[in-house]
Amino acid sequence: MRLGMIGLGRMGANLVRRLVADGHECVVYDHNADAVAALAAETNCTGVSSPAELAANLPTPRVVWVMVPAGSITTGVIEELADTLAAGDIVIDGGNSYYRDDIKHAKLLADKGIRLLDCGTSGGVWGRERGYCLMIGGDRDAFDHAEPIFATIAPGVDAAPRTPGRDGEVSQAENGYLYCGPSGAGHFVKMVHNGIEYGMMASIAEGLNILHHANIGKADQQGDAETAPLSHPEFYQYDIDIPEVTEVWRRGSVIGSWLLDLTASALQKSPALEEFAGRVSDSGEGRWTVIAAIDEGVPAPVLTTALYARFASRHLFEFGAKVLSAMRKQFGGHDEKSA
Amino acid sequence: MRLGMIGLGRMGANLVRRLVADGHECVVYDHNADAVAALAAETNCTGVSSPAELAANLPTPRVVWVMVPAGSITTGVIEELADTLAAGDIVIDGGNSYYRDDIKHAKLLADKGIRLLDCGTSGGVWGRERGYCLMIGGDRDAFDHAEPIFATIAPGVDAAPRTPGRDGEVSQAENGYLYCGPSGAGHFVKMVHNGIEYGMMASIAEGLNILHHANIGKADQQGDAETAPLSHPEFYQYDIDIPEVTEVWRRGSVIGSWLLDLTASALQKSPALEEFAGRVSDSGEGRWTVIAAIDEGVPAPVLTTALYARFASRHLFEFGAKVLSAMRKQFGGHDEKSA
Amino acid sequence: MRLGMIGLGRMGANLVRRLVADGHECVVYDHNADAVAALAAETNCTGVSSPAELAANLPTPRVVWVMVPAGSITTGVIEELADTLAAGDIVIDGGNSYYRDDIKHAKLLADKGIRLLDCGTSGGVWGRERGYCLMIGGDRDAFDHAEPIFATIAPGVDAAPRTPGRDGEVSQAENGYLYCGPSGAGHFVKMVHNGIEYGMMASIAEGLNILHHANIGKADQQGDAETAPLSHPEFYQYDIDIPEVTEVWRRGSVIGSWLLDLTASALQKSPALEEFAGRVSDSGEGRWTVIAAIDEGVPAPVLTTALYARFASRHLFEFGAKVLSAMRKQFGGHDEKSA
Amino acid sequence: MRLGMIGLGRMGANLVRRLVADGHECVVYDHNADAVAALAAETNCTGVSSPAELAANLPTPRVVWVMVPAGSITTGVIEELADTLAAGDIVIDGGNSYYRDDIKHAKLLADKGIRLLDCGTSGGVWGRERGYCLMIGGDRDAFDHAEPIFATIAPGVDAAPRTPGRDGEVSQAENGYLYCGPSGAGHFVKMVHNGIEYGMMASIAEGLNILHHANIGKADQQGDAETAPLSHPEFYQYDIDIPEVTEVWRRGSVIGSWLLDLTASALQKSPALEEFAGRVSDSGEGRWTVIAAIDEGVPAPVLTTALYARFASRHLFEFGAKVLSAMRKQFGGHDEKSA
Repeated sequence: MRLGMIGLGRMGANLVRRLVADGHECVVYDHNADAVAALAAETNCTGVSSPAELAANLPTPRVVWVMVPAGSITTGVIEELADTLAAGDIVIDGGNSYYRDDIKHAKLLADKGIRLLDCGTSGGVWGRERGYCLMIGGDRDAFDHAEPIFATIAPGVDAAPRTPGRDGEVSQAENGYLYCGPSGAGHFVKMVHNGIEYGMMASIAEGLNILHHANIGKADQQGDAETAPLSHPEFYQYDIDIPEVTEVWRRGSVIGSWLLDLTASALQKSPALEEFAGRVSDSGEGRWTVIAAIDEGVPAPVLTTALYARFASRHLFEFGAKVLSAMRKQFGGHDEKSA
Repeated sequence: MRLGMIGLGRMGANLVRRLVADGHECVVYDHNADAVAALAAETNCTGVSSPAELAANLPTPRVVWVMVPAGSITTGVIEELADTLAAGDIVIDGGNSYYRDDIKHAKLLADKGIRLLDCGTSGGVWGRERGYCLMIGGDRDAFDHAEPIFATIAPGVDAAPRTPGRDGEVSQAENGYLYCGPSGAGHFVKMVHNGIEYGMMASIAEGLNILHHANIGKADQQGDAETAPLSHPEFYQYDIDIPEVTEVWRRGSVIGSWLLDLTASALQKSPALEEFAGRVSDSGEGRWTVIAAIDEGVPAPVLTTALYARFASRHLFEFGAKVLSAMRKQFGGHDEKSA
Repeated sequence: MRLGMIGLGRMGANLVRRLVADGHECVVYDHNADAVAALAAETNCTGVSSPAELAANLPTPRVVWVMVPAGSITTGVIEELADTLAAGDIVIDGGNSYYRDDIKHAKLLADKGIRLLDCGTSGGVWGRERGYCLMIGGDRDAFDHAEPIFATIAPGVDAAPRTPGRDGEVSQAENGYLYCGPSGAGHFVKMVHNGIEYGMMASIAEGLNILHHANIGKADQQGDAETAPLSHPEFYQYDIDIPEVTEVWRRGSVIGSWLLDLTASALQKSPALEEFAGRVSDSGEGRWTVIAAIDEGVPAPVLTTALYARFASRHLFEFGAKVLSAMRKQFGGHDEKSA
Repeated sequence: MRLGMIGLGRMGANLVRRLVADGHECVVYDHNADAVAALAAETNCTGVSSPAELAANLPTPRVVWVMVPAGSITTGVIEELADTLAAGDIVIDGGNSYYRDDIKHAKLLADKGIRLLDCGTSGGVWGRERGYCLMIGGDRDAFDHAEPIFATIAPGVDAAPRTPGRDGEVSQAENGYLYCGPSGAGHFVKMVHNGIEYGMMASIAEGLNILHHANIGKADQQGDAETAPLSHPEFYQYDIDIPEVTEVWRRGSVIGSWLLDLTASALQKSPALEEFAGRVSDSGEGRWTVIAAIDEGVPAPVLTTALYARFASRHLFEFGAKVLSAMRKQFGGHDEKSA
């Protein structure tokens, strides 16, 4: 299939490489002309210098994949495509858009007869090689038309053993892509995926932090009125080799996972992770997942406290903590202890 | 009543002052002879230089209140009293002992026929004036004998309006002290009291922290791949006068409380609390409350996350946070952002 | 001052009673004519049968207090007032509106030159007698004009001892009302107040639940592969008299609070609370507080888990819990245990 | 190697089968003689009728693997082996013992010169086929002697691709077993492993529960004073096919994991999981992990709230929830809503 790609950052470029390698033809555009030239040279695809030129180089109904930062940049590209493309054409937003924006964007495009697919894309820097997990929402006919693209980008069934009981024809989901429902459904499922990711990451991090402090009984246990002394120092005398522990968990354990593989890999290179300060970013989906839980009225304490731990790692509870120390000073005369 | 007091720190000395002021006679001892001399001079009570001398100055059955740091120091005093006192005597542990230690201490003393009362004492530096809230466990007869002491130390019924429906004789609890059950029951109830205290403190602190950041929409909202931008900066344009807010909440609101009074007082003196760094100590009861919840198999997420926020304020999740940043680097190529 | 009141439910009617008792004149309207007639008869205020009639009975600039359910009903009343009132008039929304709606409503009214004050009102069914705590946002001049109304409705300085250090002129906040900032600021502060309320309520509830189960060691401790046995049943042998505990905590303790007073009152009437099933409602502000924390990027684990406990009490994690049991069955062959 | 196995439940029997299949010789004992006979017949290993007979059939230094329920049963077997075995012999506790018990058991055996290895064993019902992940603590020489057993039971390096950078000799950990440190270290690491497992399971369950309720906007949105209405029903109109979503996430996504594989498998068989009631058990390690975090003074909100969700699923917050409803009734006159 011949398709357009707008946005040639790491993700967009890797998608093009994966598509071209599987026989698709790509017409590529980025506001940075150097990125266009570099990728065109490398992959033998067609570089263009504007969305209009991109449209002119595609057969109808055109299929244009947009891979630019979520938020106002994506909205700008969508608006430009609304003016550039024609009725029947298909736009795929493969970025990390908020699913509520998909609903708005779909309406905006529908006014011109253009169809939007929202496509949550998971796989990070490894996706070019492993394939990307794709969660897709929007117009069903548009999905059917573009399905060969998704089939190429996804990992394919061989990426994992088939689930017991699934032994007939290979389904979409088994190939690594799934039509999830009307506009926004793809990014909604991707959003929840990332919420789960936050929780799983925090689970591993909290566990390793407990192992990291398993030798606390060896420290001086000088109790005072301000600090609870450790009741049983004899139970916390372990110097655990955390990189080796993450490695041993990779085989045969219940918590085997790709995130654990990556953790083992990071610790193999840098056992104490000194190159990190521990200021953990978040990039939207975790927050939106919590807001969805709140709106639905369902509890999500694990996903939420995982998110809050990131906020706290960036010292965003500092004023609240000062309030706590101030109260302790007030009722108990306790001075704050230094480190 | 004539009683002995061992431990003349702030709490012990204030208890003596309150007791003497109400007509009780105190025989006082501390390992620091200066503390004994100072208090004896001030309150017209009898200072002594050893537990044995203390015992010699008390009528039988002797009543000895122990007000020393919990843990090994309390255990040492209890062991010494086991050798010094006689069958029928009564020891009151008014400190912050773990209720499990009460059970051990009670057995140790019971071998000599001595009775232990465990007495959780709440009120902090304000108790001398306001009276202390007392939660008592142990031998019921011993409690009955010592009740006049508790009645003096407690605030008395006039400290709060009577609860609707309680219009007959004033109960123990209405006077501010309560026999809670067998050995350990007093400190168990006090422990849970402190667990609740942690949760209430954190509730106020989290709320004020949200108010503190209510002007975040005025900051530069430069989103990037590493940070979620604020979707609606127009909703976060408030510069809230937090000291005034805590003051207004003191009258007529649902969250009126002594902790709020103290918060308003602290903020009145120091609106930005610059004198605090936000490293919040904890002193045992909060931890024990969580362990009790775990042992009982009942959920206590509010009390527990309140405790964890204190741990995190002391940077004890740092290694875990590094693990999170390392994972993000691994799967997404994300570098950690500086502050 | 002569003002209009729209909405004569429990809150609106009590506000009128409190205003009339302090010498204000009220013109009252409700879509339920009986409510108008009843209140007019009782309080000697003027009942009217339409917003237009209400407007006709007020001096300019008119002051109209709106006390109707938040959401679409409030919006409807605001829209009607935009058509009924004149430039310079003042509308006070005293209900539980989302502060974001205030911003919209203020713009809508500003187009006609009408000024909106948003007023968070705390005090519940007790406010008529105790006075209400008022948090106000919007146009500053409008606030100054309407201040006598707020002064009457608020509890006044005598409702609590003055905070140490506040010994000069009595401030707004000390009288129980506070101008918090531009449109939405009042309901924003009230929203956070309710968020704190959720956390404080949950703190008490979790603590009492731990006390309720303090006798779990008396139960049969039959461990099996599916349930963790209690390691130390001897530490959980207490039958705590929870109503008496809540009473004793009311005097001299650190957790003394109005919510504790109410808890003691409820337990005094009904020690086991059999009349409740434990399905706890929530009414918006708790959710909005969490969303504010998320938007601001600050941690609020206590307020959030308090909210989630309410969701869970209404069985809204059931599908998730089934997923957990299904996983346990998969990896460990564990069958789900019945109650 | 020739070793003894005590305890022929599902785990013990499968270990024997795996050992015999790899050329080891097993002498097997269980208090249930039928279990001994059945396994001896099946695997061509030696069945015996007492620990003494087991000892008599092993070369010195004897190696005896104990695979019985943790707690008093394990302690009983250890005590019997202390009387049966001789100095230099090795006992391996492969069950789910609390690591603190290992420390006690090791001392008890050391008095007779017998060495204890504690071995955390993960893999559940799949371990016979996949191999078990083994985390081992105790005497280092004893570990070296018994290593061939661990090497057989573990999955081996081929069970997962090698971590980048690990390209020399295959380490213990890469083979799926690890010596973690002195007595208790094995079960300590296994305990934390299970704590992480709880967190990862809850992450998936919470996410799927959010997907399950993604169509809540289709329900009647009748707001009332007791329930927050959904602000934006148009954003919650999705009927998500959850079994297919779990399947698509298995390939290429960041949250790929064995637990997700099992979830997909469970949902493939039973999309609505009707056979479960959602009463989720816990079996000790999750609780102990939280207690370790508390003792160490490090935050573990994700692992802890995961545990609490299980407690809540068994209705163990009911009294607390009644307290909440009672407070709402007190301050707001709110009646509890029925389902």
